[in-house]
Amino acid sequence: VVLTSGDVDHIGGLLSLRESHRFSIHATREVLAIIVGNPVFGVLDSEIVKRNVLDPGRPHCLDCGLAIEAFVVPGKVPLYLEGDGPVSNRRSGATVGVVVSAASRRFFYVPGCAEIDDDTARRLENADLVFFDGTLWTDDEMIETRTGTKAGRRMGHMPVSGPMGSLARLKELRVRRLVYIHINNTNPMLVAGSAEQKAVAAAGAEVGFDGQEIVL
Amino acid sequence: VVLTSGDVDHIGGLLSLRESHRFSIHATREVLAIIVGNPVFGVLDSEIVKRNVLDPGRPHCLDCGLAIEAFVVPGKVPLYLEGDGPVSNRRSGATVGVVVSAASRRFFYVPGCAEIDDDTARRLENADLVFFDGTLWTDDEMIETRTGTKAGRRMGHMPVSGPMGSLARLKELRVRRLVYIHINNTNPMLVAGSAEQKAVAAAGAEVGFDGQEIVL
Repeated sequence: VVLTSGDVDHIGGLLSLRESHRFSIHATREVLAIIVGNPVFGVLDSEIVKRNVLDPGRPHCLDCGLAIEAFVVPGKVPLYLEGDGPVSNRRSGATVGVVVSAASRRFFYVPGCAEIDDDTARRLENADLVFFDGTLWTDDEMIETRTGTKAGRRMGHMPVSGPMGSLARLKELRVRRLVYIHINNTNPMLVAGSAEQKAVAAAGAEVGFDGQEIVL
Repeated sequence: VVLTSGDVDHIGGLLSLRESHRFSIHATREVLAIIVGNPVFGVLDSEIVKRNVLDPGRPHCLDCGLAIEAFVVPGKVPLYLEGDGPVSNRRSGATVGVVVSAASRRFFYVPGCAEIDDDTARRLENADLVFFDGTLWTDDEMIETRTGTKAGRRMGHMPVSGPMGSLARLKELRVRRLVYIHINNTNPMLVAGSAEQKAVAAAGAEVGFDGQEIVL
């Protein structure tokens, strides 16, 4: 299990893997600190479930033969650790993307990203395959749909649409195959036949789906 | 949501109720301390999800009009808080049963119980309806099936079967309707047509099932 964030949608599922199955967790120091700071994750016996530090920028071999490397992207700390002060998107091990490779093939997995800054752009440029943060179509979507009170960037997610959105930006960076993941249920690109879903397809990108398999 | 234990199978589901739904949590001080001690439960905004102390032995009214009263039963602390020292079953707010009542009808809900001691026996005697801890059929079931290394009592659960089991004990106490819940997947009484399931029925008790509705 490779964790790219300590937010509950990334770590909550670990509690369902507690039946003495042998596996390993790979995460940055920041995310591992969250696991340690919540004793409930002790249901994953550390004799059975090893915790491994993933140092951003350093390749790391998994037992299954894949190589992974985490890289820091702009993001925020998890919701439940925000505190009362102002929250900003910054670069820290709290939010990372990963590049996964085997032999000469590789793909990027970036489920949370507040901004494609220069460093992130350099990494993703010309990539064969990128799975990217598809949380919201527009920055104010949750406010508009009255499902929330926060803008996307306040939640650490850049929108898909618009001139500064990820779709335009990743196409500029000549990403060859772009698959959106981590899609909020307010995002209209999830609706079959919607104008937004057509816009994604017209730009040569894809809306990911459960059970999707991709051969590189 | 009324919590009778801080073990992960009782509290983990709270993380799936985090979408700004308004509800209340009712739990003993011991169990609420566990929620507070795991910052991840902060995803349940305390402005939206109120935490209420349930004092064992004191009736407590829910907004829905039901009255509940928690009562301490023998049990142990949650697995992930066991530490390295010896673990024993004792009476504390870490494990409670509840009696739920409306008008003149009431039922008992006891999903974890290491022993029917005198106090527990006095409460359950002559009850119209008891939902009771059906984790294991025999104390050494998980060892025998090689699914675990601990005996039932070591896990805070008394077995259903045997002269000291809950089935014999609750029938002695003239419980009128007994429905087993919290049943581990190693318990053979779950298997349709098994001798164990027949033994439960022959004793006038029931194996609970998902979606079961009971009118009192």
